[in-house]
Amino acid sequence: MGHDGTPITDELLLRSDADGIAVLTLNAPKSINALSEAMLGALSDTLDTIAADRSVKAVILRSGGAHFCAGHNLKEMTARRADADGGYQYFQDLFAKCSAMMLRVVRLPQPVIAEVRGIATAAGCQLVASCDLAVASEDAKFATSGVNIGLFCSTPMVALSRNVPRKLAMEMLLLGDFLPAARVAEMGLVNRVVPLDGLEAAAMQMARTIADKSPAAVKIGKRAFYEQLEMPLEDAYAFAGRTMADNMMARDAEAGIGAFTRKEAMPEWAGE
Amino acid sequence: MGHDGTPITDELLLRSDADGIAVLTLNAPKSINALSEAMLGALSDTLDTIAADRSVKAVILRSGGAHFCAGHNLKEMTARRADADGGYQYFQDLFAKCSAMMLRVVRLPQPVIAEVRGIATAAGCQLVASCDLAVASEDAKFATSGVNIGLFCSTPMVALSRNVPRKLAMEMLLLGDFLPAARVAEMGLVNRVVPLDGLEAAAMQMARTIADKSPAAVKIGKRAFYEQLEMPLEDAYAFAGRTMADNMMARDAEAGIGAFTRKEAMPEWAGE
Amino acid sequence: MGHDGTPITDELLLRSDADGIAVLTLNAPKSINALSEAMLGALSDTLDTIAADRSVKAVILRSGGAHFCAGHNLKEMTARRADADGGYQYFQDLFAKCSAMMLRVVRLPQPVIAEVRGIATAAGCQLVASCDLAVASEDAKFATSGVNIGLFCSTPMVALSRNVPRKLAMEMLLLGDFLPAARVAEMGLVNRVVPLDGLEAAAMQMARTIADKSPAAVKIGKRAFYEQLEMPLEDAYAFAGRTMADNMMARDAEAGIGAFTRKEAMPEWAGE
Repeated sequence: MGHDGTPITDELLLRSDADGIAVLTLNAPKSINALSEAMLGALSDTLDTIAADRSVKAVILRSGGAHFCAGHNLKEMTARRADADGGYQYFQDLFAKCSAMMLRVVRLPQPVIAEVRGIATAAGCQLVASCDLAVASEDAKFATSGVNIGLFCSTPMVALSRNVPRKLAMEMLLLGDFLPAARVAEMGLVNRVVPLDGLEAAAMQMARTIADKSPAAVKIGKRAFYEQLEMPLEDAYAFAGRTMADNMMARDAEAGIGAFTRKEAMPEWAGE
Repeated sequence: MGHDGTPITDELLLRSDADGIAVLTLNAPKSINALSEAMLGALSDTLDTIAADRSVKAVILRSGGAHFCAGHNLKEMTARRADADGGYQYFQDLFAKCSAMMLRVVRLPQPVIAEVRGIATAAGCQLVASCDLAVASEDAKFATSGVNIGLFCSTPMVALSRNVPRKLAMEMLLLGDFLPAARVAEMGLVNRVVPLDGLEAAAMQMARTIADKSPAAVKIGKRAFYEQLEMPLEDAYAFAGRTMADNMMARDAEAGIGAFTRKEAMPEWAGE
Repeated sequence: MGHDGTPITDELLLRSDADGIAVLTLNAPKSINALSEAMLGALSDTLDTIAADRSVKAVILRSGGAHFCAGHNLKEMTARRADADGGYQYFQDLFAKCSAMMLRVVRLPQPVIAEVRGIATAAGCQLVASCDLAVASEDAKFATSGVNIGLFCSTPMVALSRNVPRKLAMEMLLLGDFLPAARVAEMGLVNRVVPLDGLEAAAMQMARTIADKSPAAVKIGKRAFYEQLEMPLEDAYAFAGRTMADNMMARDAEAGIGAFTRKEAMPEWAGE
């Protein structure tokens, strides 16, 4: 059995749904949940499936085993040095595939919560940074340690440097040390740090809170969040103003605001 | 009488000036200082007046009643669902008007200090984020809670996401919970948290410190701050270098630097 | 003798190298290490020399005397008010020269660590912000205090506003007060705060950690860090993915990853 009672299977990525919440469990603890080609493929496929699944309101990204994720599968990559081009084309494709998976997390209509125990390093740390929210156990440790073995964490830094102040990002990228959860939380990478035995409950509570909202409002808002971040201030306001007017016309907004102004309980959301 | 001894009047926005400091008091406590059309109009008009008033060196934005501001006036908005288009055009105009008011705060030549007690939520939280500086009482609470009623805080997130790390912004936007002043202060939304009975004094002290500076230097600097933030690093330096050379040619810079190098007291500022 | 036993010389900038680490010491304590034209020139020349020096793996920027740096040399600047144009062209050139020096720090292939004791103000604070990493003594104090003498710190704000949340940046720029090291550290401007008698050791430890890495990986990564920060997310990923594939083809990455997967000690780095 896994740490959470999940049966150990051969599948790299487990999915279990309940109450509108999809829990995805990285299930390759022997490789510290390495983001192998197969794992990237499983994550990408599952995220695509969830994107189209209106029954899912929130996603938790959990790890099987004691650690969250150690990043790329270096053995798999090293094997491709035997390619005619030394693996160059393969590496380009692999990093593109990995980046596309990270962007799927960002673009998923439903919010994704990283539930982090143990180690989250390199692309594993990037995965935390790419999620919308993150909860970590007190003993969780974060690093972008590729620099220690001659491979700077260049793709992880894209997500990391958009989550924390640049001097902390540089510290992690240049020194390669593991930082404790409390440190990265105070700098913005993680929302909450809790005792290990309360980790799943904390992530689940966040997910339930989100699942109680109008999925229409959440979907509109999450997409707009990342889009407006890349705009100058005035453009961002013009865009967000149109977004909010559109949101006003949704059935959920009409029902929710109506209930609020009449001091009634929130309605069942139509999700549109 | 209001909490600060100000006479209660019918006016939505009170202005009192002393020593170069304009204190604007949101005066609709019954609606928790809702940003109704009339309130947005009053704020916009007053900011335009102050922009042209060289006697004003700094602005404090205070609230009448126990709370800072609860955001848009949902009753007023709901009434417009009876419009032929369900209110769509009205909502677009309203959010554009609100964004234009927030941009007036950003573009005002004089710095604006939010003085926050009680609740600051939705567009009320955005108003805090849009100010240059913010002081909060220990019991102040911040939220972008529109998601709770089906209307994601899309325009508030424009300002919020430019003030705090993105995971905290997402937490506020997706979960809709109130966060205490201490939490948002450690993440950057608020400069200082003080006991409620020291709130006005803390904001006033900030305002006085600013009012003692050269208005010419403050005006040049505030405008340049927001402009350079949207530029790539090299462009920002080229722009800021020209700005600073221009600032050097101002009478106040000549007098101030001269006094400093001669170890004399600062002069009366000419304001140009 | 200086505080660290360095012989006092006439040179504005001292350089001493050991074990791949270049320590640059600002050596004009009488002017609080003012960034005079001569100091800017010495820093620029030395940085250019180091950029081409493959023996240097990391740089520490230290101050002679009790204080880090007080910014521009106001006496030198004031003297140029006698120019036919009141100094305008000179000021433009000076700020351009200073910005170019700051950009040299950012673009130097080797990481630069600011080692900050005493005061770091105006362009001195900007210099800290421009370094990749920063360590400060507990008694260090930071300010952008130009506003106090009529000259807003417009070029310092370019670096400052890219290091800390904007409300803290505005606080420093508008109020002009000195903030203690602990405060700016918790907001991101400084990585570590240590007792004064452990300051040099702390900076040296960071430098040694970096000097132990592959210089090829560090060089690739530092450059990519600042480039990708200015790109939209999707472009940043495309760029970083190519960067990382290129990094994979470097001899150091092949040797380092190979050693790691075989559980061997890291190799001597070839630096390419």
